[in-house]
This record gives sequence, structure tokens and C-alpha cells, in this order.
Amino acid sequence: MSPDNPLPEFDLINRFFTRTTDDKGVVLGVGDDAAVLSAEPGTELVVATDVIVEQIHFPAYTPPHAVGHRALAVNLSDLAAMGAEPRWATLALSLPEADPAWVEQFATGFFALADAHNIALVGGDTVAGPLFASVTVHGVVPAGEAVLRSTASDGDGIYVTGCTGDAVAGRLCEGTNDNDHYLAARFLYPAPRVAQGRALRGVASAMIDVSDGLHADLTHMLSASGVGAELDINALPLSEELIASAGEREAATFALTGGDDYELCFTVPPEQEPALQSLSDSFDCPLTRIGTCTEDRAVNWREDGKLFAVPAGYSHFETEGAD
Amino acid sequence: MSPDNPLPEFDLINRFFTRTTDDKGVVLGVGDDAAVLSAEPGTELVVATDVIVEQIHFPAYTPPHAVGHRALAVNLSDLAAMGAEPRWATLALSLPEADPAWVEQFATGFFALADAHNIALVGGDTVAGPLFASVTVHGVVPAGEAVLRSTASDGDGIYVTGCTGDAVAGRLCEGTNDNDHYLAARFLYPAPRVAQGRALRGVASAMIDVSDGLHADLTHMLSASGVGAELDINALPLSEELIASAGEREAATFALTGGDDYELCFTVPPEQEPALQSLSDSFDCPLTRIGTCTEDRAVNWREDGKLFAVPAGYSHFETEGAD
Repeated sequence: MSPDNPLPEFDLINRFFTRTTDDKGVVLGVGDDAAVLSAEPGTELVVATDVIVEQIHFPAYTPPHAVGHRALAVNLSDLAAMGAEPRWATLALSLPEADPAWVEQFATGFFALADAHNIALVGGDTVAGPLFASVTVHGVVPAGEAVLRSTASDGDGIYVTGCTGDAVAGRLCEGTNDNDHYLAARFLYPAPRVAQGRALRGVASAMIDVSDGLHADLTHMLSASGVGAELDINALPLSEELIASAGEREAATFALTGGDDYELCFTVPPEQEPALQSLSDSFDCPLTRIGTCTEDRAVNWREDGKLFAVPAGYSHFETEGAD
Repeated sequence: MSPDNPLPEFDLINRFFTRTTDDKGVVLGVGDDAAVLSAEPGTELVVATDVIVEQIHFPAYTPPHAVGHRALAVNLSDLAAMGAEPRWATLALSLPEADPAWVEQFATGFFALADAHNIALVGGDTVAGPLFASVTVHGVVPAGEAVLRSTASDGDGIYVTGCTGDAVAGRLCEGTNDNDHYLAARFLYPAPRVAQGRALRGVASAMIDVSDGLHADLTHMLSASGVGAELDINALPLSEELIASAGEREAATFALTGGDDYELCFTVPPEQEPALQSLSDSFDCPLTRIGTCTEDRAVNWREDGKLFAVPAGYSHFETEGAD
């Protein structure tokens, strides 16, 4: 091998993933054994890793542009849930073949979202193998200010951003009318709530992102915090499009257990309610109170006052995911 | 889902990958949406990502303990090549089935190496899918002191740690005698040269780790530095076991192009030679000078003074890797 005859691997990386950058804190980006990064004094680093695998996390028909978007979006959603400001990402990409057109579309989707959130790609690895993308994202928060999932208290209000259930409906729908197009886009292009998460720092007492389904992720947060909740099925934020597509009954089930929403679920102490109301005007998504934390650790959903039994949730090890 | 009936995914993670840690700088480890980490003032962060995929980077027969070791080792090797001190790792693990015995052995191999290098697992993602492991490692260096691959100069000596070629021979051998056992272990359990890399900070002018083959990686370093080299085939560090197994001629080819060595290749300016000699006594591996950087950008290997044509190198997109 000579510099004039690079391996296809390096050729692909160079063509699509190497960009000059003046992004904050990037001392050395793509192209060496590792990236060198510099965080400001007084900050802590927030790091998350999520992998998406074809047939498990996205269907084979997913456009490469949407795969690139998703690979980063699911990770940005984790930073959002900590209240962190995105900085840097690394990407491990495995491809069944070195198809430049596919990689270019993937990179376009990836960088469109990266640019929208000021996150720089600083390193990675491209290999031959089954189709998957593993991303690690790095954000920063002022020291001590990350929003954990374990710090909700009895009496805190429970909120969710946006509408849940759209994504799973979009994955299942036929895509033949306007409603379905809206839902399909909600599945293919999840919008991580980065600005909302950052704004909620200092206001939310606990926060988690909704990836496995609202009920499952909310239960994680409540369990980690040692509290339970009283929750209202009738308060669930359901989009008109979801109700039109699935009907009201199925819409509620999707909203509770569907997964792939990448909304934020968080708790707010009573004394922070005024601050939350001020913030919510600046949010470009709905903000809905769905319940209240309780000392009793049971997680009770009620419909018109009566206990509602939540159907089984999504598991990565159930075949349900492998459609 | 209730806290008493966790999803298999979380069950696996909790059982094998969650450990209490008092490791330096870990504010919040596994178990939230992201880890929260704190680097000392005056340091820069060094970040690398490498993924290993079954059938591409390790054969299907590889014991899970060795897969866990390898997933971390190939990444620590990148930190070593920057002169960084390892701190934190994240792991994205994809498994065809939720087999606790397999995961336990994987985790044992992973943590044995992690503990040896004081690196804490701070986050990750476990999914169902084809067998692969994607690791991102984080290390630190004093600001401005990372060793790049682009800073070698005309006249610098070119060195390599350990013996190259063993790993590919170990992958190909039958495993029926002591030589073969030695070589197989060199393939299954690569030893990242972390201590050597750190010690070479301030002594080496440029450094790279040898993962794709000595000639290919050396050529990357020279090319990035804008120099060439005169190199001596007769000086190649070949282990007795490699020569006994492959013969002297094939041994040299393996050493130049085999890959999977995870040794360090680096350059040293003449004025740092005395410092290097002092250091080498403390290294637990051979240290061999194989050539000298030249202003002319050609990369010339010579055998008994005559130009030697290096066979084609390894590419992740060649079917050769998929045995």
C-alpha cells in the first residue's frame, strides 16, 4: 500500500467523514490513532453510547440518509436527557459492502443532524460486516449540574415532551396518506430534544429519554429514584395523526409501550412549576403533565379513575424487534 | 415491566457490567442515560473507537474471554499510540442470543484487561444482533503532549516494540505444538503497549499502533508526516516461534503485512536517542530500530542492501478477513 493507493476503507473515511473543523475544543480530529479534545474548566463530560443494527433497530428499507440521522439522534437523545450540551461524536460503521453512494447518503443524514446540534465527528472506524452504526457522543455540563434519573421525589410532577406513540405507528403503517407520512417521518427522523433538555437543567429534578416506550422508561426513572407514581391515561399526549391512523384505544397503547419516541420524560418539584411554565413557551413541542410522583412505589396508570393494566413492553431480545 | 421483572437486556447489563467504582474522575457510571466524567485541569482528553465483528476481526471459534479482551485491547492500543493514560471505556455489545455464560466469560476477559490498565467501564448498550463489540476508550494526556502520527522528521530513527507477524501466524496455525500455542496466544490476547506509549511521550516524535500490518501503518505515519524512509528487512524483529513455525522468508512477510500485532511503531529524533536507551531497559518487550526517516518520500525496504517489494497489505474490505 502506498499513499497514492489507499485501502478502500481509508478512501471511504477520507471522502465522507473527514471535514476540517474549528469546533470548540477539538485539538485533533479524524485521522490519527485517536482524537484529542479539550473541555472547558469547570465542566464535566457526559458520555453515551448507542448502537443501531439493521433489522433490529431499523428495517432494511430505511433510506441511508435516515440511518445516518438515527445513529446520531438516538445518542443525542441521551445527552438531552442529562441536560448536556453536545460537543463531539465518534462513529463505528460496519458495512456489508463499500458502496460510496450509500455511505454518502448516510454521511449527509449524519452531518445534517450533527451541524444542527454543533457536534463534531472526531473519530471512528469503518469495517466490513453486517450493517450497523455505533456512535459515542460527548457533551458537557457545568460541574454538578447533570440531570440524573435517580433524583425524583414524592410530589414532583411528571411531564413528557412531544407526543409518544407516533414512531411505532409510523414504523407499522402503510405510508399511503398524509397521516401515515407524518408518522413515518416521526419514525425515520426522530428529533432529539437537546434544547429542551438543556433548558430543563436546574428545573427538572430527574429526567430520562423515551426510547423503549414511555411506561418502561418512566418506570426506570421512578425505580431509580425510589418513588412510584399516579398517572393519567387520559392525559397522554397523542397526536391527531396517531389517533386518525390507529384509533384512540390503540393510540394509547402505542404511546405507552411503542418505543423509538426519543422524547424526554422528566419530573419537576412544585417550587419549579413557575420556571417550567416560563420555559415551555420557548419549546417548539408540546409539554404535557401526565402524573405525580408518590411515596408508594407502585406505578399506577388510571383511566377515568380506574386502574389501567399496561401491556407488556418492548425488549431488545424479543423477536418483535426483528421485523 | 416492573423493577422486579427487568427486561433480559437490563438483567444482563446489571449482572455483568455494573460494578461499583471509585475510579478517578467517574462522577456517574453505568446506569443512567449517560456517564458523567471529570478530567483534571491541564489535561486533554484522548478518544478512540474500534469495533470488532465476528468472522471479520476474530474467527467464530474465538473464546468469549478472548473476544472481551480483544474488544478493549485494540482500543487501548490506540490510546498507547497517543501516549495517553487510559481512564474510561464504553461498550456497545451485540449478541445473537442472551447467553449468560457467554456474556460472563466476555466480561471476565474485558475486565481483566481493564483492571490491568485502570480503565473503568462507564456506559454501554447491549442489543440483539450479529456478534460484535464496539468500544470507545477515553484517556488523558497533559495538554499539548499527545504524540501524533504526523510529526516525524527527516533523520529520525524508526522503531517498533515487540515482534510483529506473530498474530497472523497464530491465527493461521494449527495449534498443535508449543510454538503454535505461543503464536495463537499472541493472536488471541494482544498486549496493548500502554506503559511503553506513555513512557515514550516526550521522546518519540511520532507514533502509530500496528493493527493493519507494520508496513501499512508505518506508511500512514510517514505519509502523514510528509517524509519517507529507508528500512531494513534484516532488522525486522521476528520471534523464534514465528521463524520456527513459518520459516524465515514467510516470517518476514507476516511481520510486514500480517496485521493484528498491536505493537507500537514510532520515530525518535537523534537528540532523544539517549533518553530512549534509558527507557528501553524498563520495557518488558524488545525495542528494535528498523530504519530512518528520509526527506525523499519513498518508503524503501532493503534486504541485504537491495530494494524489497512489499506484498499487498491487509484491507478490511478484502474477503481475506472473512475466514
